[in-house]
Amino acid sequence: MSSGRVLGKLAELGLVLPPVAKPVAAYTPARREGSLIFISGQLPLKDGQLLATGAMTPDRDLAEIQAAMGQCFLNAVAAAGLVCDLDDIEGVIKLSAFVACSADFYDQHLVANGASELAQKIFGQSGVHARAAVGVPALPLGATVELEVIFSS
Amino acid sequence: MSSGRVLGKLAELGLVLPPVAKPVAAYTPARREGSLIFISGQLPLKDGQLLATGAMTPDRDLAEIQAAMGQCFLNAVAAAGLVCDLDDIEGVIKLSAFVACSADFYDQHLVANGASELAQKIFGQSGVHARAAVGVPALPLGATVELEVIFSS
Amino acid sequence: MSSGRVLGKLAELGLVLPPVAKPVAAYTPARREGSLIFISGQLPLKDGQLLATGAMTPDRDLAEIQAAMGQCFLNAVAAAGLVCDLDDIEGVIKLSAFVACSADFYDQHLVANGASELAQKIFGQSGVHARAAVGVPALPLGATVELEVIFSS
Repeated sequence: MSSGRVLGKLAELGLVLPPVAKPVAAYTPARREGSLIFISGQLPLKDGQLLATGAMTPDRDLAEIQAAMGQCFLNAVAAAGLVCDLDDIEGVIKLSAFVACSADFYDQHLVANGASELAQKIFGQSGVHARAAVGVPALPLGATVELEVIFSS
Repeated sequence: MSSGRVLGKLAELGLVLPPVAKPVAAYTPARREGSLIFISGQLPLKDGQLLATGAMTPDRDLAEIQAAMGQCFLNAVAAAGLVCDLDDIEGVIKLSAFVACSADFYDQHLVANGASELAQKIFGQSGVHARAAVGVPALPLGATVELEVIFSS
Repeated sequence: MSSGRVLGKLAELGLVLPPVAKPVAAYTPARREGSLIFISGQLPLKDGQLLATGAMTPDRDLAEIQAAMGQCFLNAVAAAGLVCDLDDIEGVIKLSAFVACSADFYDQHLVANGASELAQKIFGQSGVHARAAVGVPALPLGATVELEVIFSS
């Protein structure tokens, strides 16, 4: 990995790329096909701990769950580093944000902004992506959020 | 935008492309990569109002929610127009239909038909796509349906 | 279809490719764009019956639902055969596993292993894919699992 554009931006933002967790099954954190890099669904793991668990509700603190979504994106960037030099990432193509939530929580898009805004901070204009945000009843390990990413390079 | 094939078909079907809503965060309604155009998750917004809100249940009128799904598809076509001439769309590759629903509603695929059938009406044989339809507990703004689309051009 | 690499591996594993069910709407089981083959969401149908219905819970047998997820993958392989020679499949790029579940079920990733492990058995190292696994409240026909697949060829 070079100490170039993307890593420089991460340092400028005070962000440290986490080590990539080894999947426990027959899949991989990142798979390239042509110019697309598909990243496996990322949980808000930091230093081996989930930053948020349990269902999001209208009463829970939004900023905390947005930060968890940002961690998912950072983990996705780290995963991309397994199949390419991070400075070869040309853009962020698509985010799919899944939010474990109660049936009366309607701000999945605001939660997803935690990932979208970080994508733009790190990658600038080429980080502006298509996106979907939906609610789910539950996620692996009880996480509150999960994020899928497609990068291009 | 030309007054060509796709716009002609829309006019023939009596369909009016809506203006594309500006996203409120760091994402974009449509992002192209190679021949693929990824469209952000579309809600059934028409003239600034959601056509359907709240969870789908076995008792609710199916046709109404199918129409809402059709509106999502129309909004997706409009979004595609931001990154290409609509007449350059070669086909509809993939739809992902999310239906906010109760745990005893099992007709997500019938709801999704509201988008699939419109895709074929507008794009003909090249509008025949791969598709997934799943239930979710809740969607942004309380919408009943959300639709992701991948076009090719 | 040739009697080559993939079909040979299927035979070696004692797996029989099912006939592909005709979609009842304006969509198709498999759609190719460039090197990507997008497979429609597959249910765990075998001989016209769903292998698992109803929500997954912490109390239900995991192995049974993993087997249902494996059937979804097998159905996806069969669907790919509609648009390419199976021996031309170069790899499994991405799985999206949807698990109908109660809000206290957190092992969607273990359920998804039923598909991931079969992908590796059939396709070897090129079957190692990116993956997401999420919970949902309900799926078409009351199925417990649904699987989306992207192959490359």
